[in-house]
Amino acid sequence: MKRAIFRRHGDPAEVIEIIEEDDPTPGPGEVRVRNRVMTINPADLLSIEGRYGAEPITLPATPGVGAYGVVDAVGEGVTRLAVGDAVLPVGGGFWADTLILRERMAPKAPTGADPEQAALMRANPGTAHLMLTDIVDLQPGDWVVQNAANSNVGRMVIRFARERGLHTVNIVRRADVADALTDDGADAVIVDQGQNIAAAIAEAAGAAPKLALDAVGGGATRALGAALADRGTVVAYGLLSGQPNQMDARDVVFRDVRLQGFWLFDWYRTATVEKMRDLHGFLEAKLAEGMLQTDIEARYPLDQIKEAVAHAARSGRNGKILLKGDHNA
Amino acid sequence: MKRAIFRRHGDPAEVIEIIEEDDPTPGPGEVRVRNRVMTINPADLLSIEGRYGAEPITLPATPGVGAYGVVDAVGEGVTRLAVGDAVLPVGGGFWADTLILRERMAPKAPTGADPEQAALMRANPGTAHLMLTDIVDLQPGDWVVQNAANSNVGRMVIRFARERGLHTVNIVRRADVADALTDDGADAVIVDQGQNIAAAIAEAAGAAPKLALDAVGGGATRALGAALADRGTVVAYGLLSGQPNQMDARDVVFRDVRLQGFWLFDWYRTATVEKMRDLHGFLEAKLAEGMLQTDIEARYPLDQIKEAVAHAARSGRNGKILLKGDHNA
Repeated sequence: MKRAIFRRHGDPAEVIEIIEEDDPTPGPGEVRVRNRVMTINPADLLSIEGRYGAEPITLPATPGVGAYGVVDAVGEGVTRLAVGDAVLPVGGGFWADTLILRERMAPKAPTGADPEQAALMRANPGTAHLMLTDIVDLQPGDWVVQNAANSNVGRMVIRFARERGLHTVNIVRRADVADALTDDGADAVIVDQGQNIAAAIAEAAGAAPKLALDAVGGGATRALGAALADRGTVVAYGLLSGQPNQMDARDVVFRDVRLQGFWLFDWYRTATVEKMRDLHGFLEAKLAEGMLQTDIEARYPLDQIKEAVAHAARSGRNGKILLKGDHNA
Repeated sequence: MKRAIFRRHGDPAEVIEIIEEDDPTPGPGEVRVRNRVMTINPADLLSIEGRYGAEPITLPATPGVGAYGVVDAVGEGVTRLAVGDAVLPVGGGFWADTLILRERMAPKAPTGADPEQAALMRANPGTAHLMLTDIVDLQPGDWVVQNAANSNVGRMVIRFARERGLHTVNIVRRADVADALTDDGADAVIVDQGQNIAAAIAEAAGAAPKLALDAVGGGATRALGAALADRGTVVAYGLLSGQPNQMDARDVVFRDVRLQGFWLFDWYRTATVEKMRDLHGFLEAKLAEGMLQTDIEARYPLDQIKEAVAHAARSGRNGKILLKGDHNA
């Protein structure tokens, strides 16, 4: 079997490598999964660079938190899964053509789902859905503003918001993505060209937004905060600029505008079983409806991991980069 | 009667002036109050400068939110107050030797209270108490960290925290104030000399603080946020640096450290009658115990308002600047 590892933190394309290991055998209660699809997310790249928030990881380590695979061997006592079942593994360390998983960490993939779209189902759509439901009480007609709106999370925010009767103002850096966002249901798209973004949001929105979603940081956070209604909340969930979040102190002190974070990993760490079931039920329903459809820009075999992460790190992409497993293919 | 007004926003010592008006007569349900003491707070100076958060004010305007006065005339239908009663007016526009107030806006001062200390009772001690009680659930043994700890709010935070069994780490800019803070009950005092403040807090505190109180903004906010425990809260309540609050995005996203504001004016605007009664009862009890004792650096007659606000704007003070009313004195 093949596995991607990094032995030290650094530039992903430099430090990531593929190693070969003996094919493993599942122990009691375990299954062996052959990954067909593995996702590359910004969080994976941050993790390789040593800039991610999770507990210090032991090196060498294997990235990857999203995958679609097929069970090809089951250990003693496995009851729910059988050879041939498609699964969406839970946890991490998935950039490998083969995984050994405890049975309960391998929930079945939705029947008939496209493997690529299913592998992408949890991370970005889950983040988008929870940021719209778990933080601020939003009613139909309310406005939400977000930056990096052309990201996969951003696209899902637009779709979920539209379905709930929420309106979105969407900040992007490239004018050529506006049509796709409008097709998704964006009420307004602002192309950031150095203008006063807070003023542009105020002009574009029918009412001051109650919620802002910030994947950028730095002054971009401050522009969102300034555009919010009194008692509004800025939710930071990304680190794209690498700069500290800024908030105008007058917005914070005098208008009760707040800044807090969202991190899906932490949500899973603290959520109840019921909340997780609700989330997964929602996501499976939306996947079946085709609402989670995500653009794929390129697919790389696991062997080309360096090219894949270099591509994923480039700005100006028009879709996700996926890894394909070819064990026994 | 004499009143301080500003006709335009600007440097307080430049734009503030005293005007003389006819002595007013209280109407039905109103009382006339001769102010003995009026407080000068940073918020008053910000208001004159046009940097304060309240609704746009109509110019010319009179600053001042803290006063101690004596009723010397009552209008028809006034039942609770009589000539000679000492009161602590509620509201604003108090930099005048004479006020006309609706009876319910003139609650009696605590019996026997020192007029200067009583005039100072609500704003700073109220802010300190509410920031320690209304935002984060704190238990005895928990740690709190604050900057600008030598301010009047900061001193009250230290005293109230000690009484509740909370521990404080206190950041100041001048080493010569450390003894006074230790006398107040500070567990640790850090003199900011450009060192790594987050590291200094971690070293000084017995456990990572759950609450940080920030009167400074800019990078000072970030240092507090970095020192907090996971899921801790930074409360911004001041604008001393004039810089946007900064928060490390990794603290926000990965450690769920939050930033929110506190503003006493807004608290009063939204608090229930019961909560206000609780607050005032607490403050009166602490005033009677002598716990609110505040250093006074200088007193100016209302006529010397320009000198008074210039003094209040200077850094390195060792106490409050007060205005004294001399009507009929």
